[in-house]
Amino acid sequence: MSNGFANTPEPPYLAVIFTSRLGHDDADYAAMAAEMETLAAAQPGYLGIESARGADRVGITVSYWRDEESVRAWKSVARHRAAQAAGRAKWYEHFEVRVAHVERAYGGP
Amino acid sequence: MSNGFANTPEPPYLAVIFTSRLGHDDADYAAMAAEMETLAAAQPGYLGIESARGADRVGITVSYWRDEESVRAWKSVARHRAAQAAGRAKWYEHFEVRVAHVERAYGGP
Repeated sequence: MSNGFANTPEPPYLAVIFTSRLGHDDADYAAMAAEMETLAAAQPGYLGIESARGADRVGITVSYWRDEESVRAWKSVARHRAAQAAGRAKWYEHFEVRVAHVERAYGGP
Repeated sequence: MSNGFANTPEPPYLAVIFTSRLGHDDADYAAMAAEMETLAAAQPGYLGIESARGADRVGITVSYWRDEESVRAWKSVARHRAAQAAGRAKWYEHFEVRVAHVERAYGGP
């Protein structure tokens, strides 16, 4: 994610859209998020990640995956499961996860 | 989008993932973006929108739609087409658009 964009192949592939709002106790959050990005990038079927968070603490992270198998495998990685549990307990006021099949894509300008 | 989250129905529905990096000339950008959010919300098949942009100027906006027809109709709205052209010419260093079918969703904590 050198320039902020995932270098995804031609569709089809999968996108996991993770929208979250952080609470006010965000100690250790940035370190966990960076660790998870590194760990995700080492998983089979990983295609890339894009992430943004504004001053209102609402963030969107979209990770891209080759297929359903790789999405499910990443969800179940032990260190990732621990991070999910910590997120529910400590960091996120709310989150939404949407798993989607990317059908077409284009870029510009 | 009162709290930053789109109040989407049960899947299936569509997501348009728009990732962009703004250049340094962002005059009028915020006004255009706000106008497009208002206009999108008035279109048939609109389900909601989520958006975040960080200090590195990378932003992700995900708009949700009932079906392919509503995605295509919104893309062709005249005022939206003008905004797309202005974005290519003036605002975006780069952007990626991905159209995806949301298969499942869940929230938390």
